Amino acid sequence: MSVTFAKGFSASGVNTDISSNKEKLDLALVVNNGPLDAAAGVFTSNRFSAAPVQWSRKAIANGHIKAVVLNSGGANACTGEAGLKQSADTAAKVAEVLSGENVVAPDDIAVCSTGLIGELLPLDHVLAGVDKAASTLCDTEQAGIDASTAIMTTDTKPKTVKLQGTGYRVGGMVKGSGMIAPQLATMLCVITTDAMVDAAQLQGVLATATEKSFNRIDVDGCMSTNDTVLLLASGASGVTPEPQEFAGMIHDACASLAHQIIGDGEGSSHDIKITVNGAETEDAALACARAVAGSNLLKCAIYGNDPNWGRIVSTLGTVPADVAAYEPEAVTVDINGVRVCEHAGAGIDRSQVKMEAREVDIDIDLNHGSQSASVWTDDLTHEYVHINADYES
Amino acid sequence: MSVTFAKGFSASGVNTDISSNKEKLDLALVVNNGPLDAAAGVFTSNRFSAAPVQWSRKAIANGHIKAVVLNSGGANACTGEAGLKQSADTAAKVAEVLSGENVVAPDDIAVCSTGLIGELLPLDHVLAGVDKAASTLCDTEQAGIDASTAIMTTDTKPKTVKLQGTGYRVGGMVKGSGMIAPQLATMLCVITTDAMVDAAQLQGVLATATEKSFNRIDVDGCMSTNDTVLLLASGASGVTPEPQEFAGMIHDACASLAHQIIGDGEGSSHDIKITVNGAETEDAALACARAVAGSNLLKCAIYGNDPNWGRIVSTLGTVPADVAAYEPEAVTVDINGVRVCEHAGAGIDRSQVKMEAREVDIDIDLNHGSQSASVWTDDLTHEYVHINADYES
Repeated sequence: MSVTFAKGFSASGVNTDISSNKEKLDLALVVNNGPLDAAAGVFTSNRFSAAPVQWSRKAIANGHIKAVVLNSGGANACTGEAGLKQSADTAAKVAEVLSGENVVAPDDIAVCSTGLIGELLPLDHVLAGVDKAASTLCDTEQAGIDASTAIMTTDTKPKTVKLQGTGYRVGGMVKGSGMIAPQLATMLCVITTDAMVDAAQLQGVLATATEKSFNRIDVDGCMSTNDTVLLLASGASGVTPEPQEFAGMIHDACASLAHQIIGDGEGSSHDIKITVNGAETEDAALACARAVAGSNLLKCAIYGNDPNWGRIVSTLGTVPADVAAYEPEAVTVDINGVRVCEHAGAGIDRSQVKMEAREVDIDIDLNHGSQSASVWTDDLTHEYVHINADYES
Repeated sequence: MSVTFAKGFSASGVNTDISSNKEKLDLALVVNNGPLDAAAGVFTSNRFSAAPVQWSRKAIANGHIKAVVLNSGGANACTGEAGLKQSADTAAKVAEVLSGENVVAPDDIAVCSTGLIGELLPLDHVLAGVDKAASTLCDTEQAGIDASTAIMTTDTKPKTVKLQGTGYRVGGMVKGSGMIAPQLATMLCVITTDAMVDAAQLQGVLATATEKSFNRIDVDGCMSTNDTVLLLASGASGVTPEPQEFAGMIHDACASLAHQIIGDGEGSSHDIKITVNGAETEDAALACARAVAGSNLLKCAIYGNDPNWGRIVSTLGTVPADVAAYEPEAVTVDINGVRVCEHAGAGIDRSQVKMEAREVDIDIDLNHGSQSASVWTDDLTHEYVHINADYES
């Protein structure tokens, strides 16, 4: 159901020939019909943030967003002043077509783009697409699916979520497959709710949820210039949610979408969950898990169904002692439940590890405390190289 | 000529069935026949350092090493107390076979191993190999080549260097192809000289040389447990070198060997030299160059002969401002001499960049100072994935 599951939202996805694929839906519109227009956002920390990121960060600063326009087929990143004007013109066009009895201002509109870095968009196609998208807005399930399809690039399937709260709903969509690294958010994500929540509460809930979800996945260690996560509240349910339940729902929505990104990571054949237990602090556990998740050699081994624990501990050994305290001799490693490494040496023979399933669980115990953290990644495959050597993105 | 080019050294390389390849030379011996036995070493900073690294670090502490025994076919890393005993037993065996009029002690012997992590060596094969290697020691060119061949794993060719100083010589060999990251040294390297130099001077010269050579290459971002660089002086030339010339020669030897590693990086089709100019400090330049060198997406693009500057600036944008100061708008990027990015946007059309040559030069100017640094890396190819998904190392 995607973004239209929550009441008060309509959406559409249209083809407007932005991308080289003339068949593919490539422009999505998500409109918040109210009564509220509360919004929160989390953006990439990349210093070369794209024009739409710069635009949307300003637009959302006052806590109000009435609509989001998203395109695939071009990132509008590293495009200078001309790129900034394209994002502004796109927002102005959406504001214009949505204005009726009530005037909608350009800074009520968030803009998201994804695709090749370094080239301007074909703006006439984008503006024509906005007209087309506005004329097909709908609150049906299909409209939500169309929107989530229009933002796909190397994604092989739309990624959506719907969750039922106590008297209110949460829906969402995300795109992301490559250029995924855990330094704020992921590619493009819009989450909607019909709960009655103000912008300040949304921002707090979203920041916490992204930290524990999108910031804990890593397809290829490469951070995007366009990462954007938006959370919009329409208040259409009339229900003010119990804060803890609401925070849990937003977390669950983000976690589901993050997991779907890993499940559709470029060329991947295994989802790899790396959990570090027994750390002095959560930060120490996270640093270790992220280091292991970044090992190309490990990711290749998992692709080859090889439970190569040597590539796990050799990567763990690169984490400085002042970042994560542990004694190498005390560390244990389990792969899919088999203790393949203990006392800094071989444990149960690794031939005992079953590697057929898509999910591979790597559990590291530092035996140096009680804190833990998990990071998800994908294996590194021929198909990943193929996609990224031949696809211009 | 490898390690036998300098006078006062003999070497050998033999097959002793350590590895699964029954034909391959897999054990090398390098003996310093004096009159000096001065030595210096630089080792991996990995916290899971291998047994031979732990052994050799202690052995070299007094500045004296008479011989180095090196094996491929097994890293003897993460092998606990039993692994440490294997390194000690190997050193004792070498000391025994080399003892004649003058007694050689086990701690006069350095030990190096490379191969699969997490398994003990077949010690009887290693000890028998030491006998065989000792009986074939020779100071010929072929003996040096045999030694450099015996330490190869996924390397496709032996890597050696010879340099003539003013009245003295420097020779060397290295192995390394994958699991190469710039956090101290590389895989296994032995450099020999017949100059009259003491251990303290050797250590200073070697530390500086490795910092600017082996620490500036990165095949796959994965640090080994076994990295060892040894520098041995026999004094057989009778010449005390001019210090600056000698430092320059050791640097040149390390730089040549480091470059050969990149030229033989696992599965690589391009050597990529990333130079960052215009930085406030050399450390800032180095941090930026290393970040770009670590981008899987860039490395895939180069494999596809795609001068994708968007993947360069998006990686540059992940370096925190307190690590490297710059204004994104001021950054320029040249690929093979073509200015493809300026003013945070597209410059000359990237179709103008010629990508046929093996070497690809990426020159980034931060325009924020006068310091610079270069890092070498390889592209990321199908063959890299194939080697590391199917090869157990």
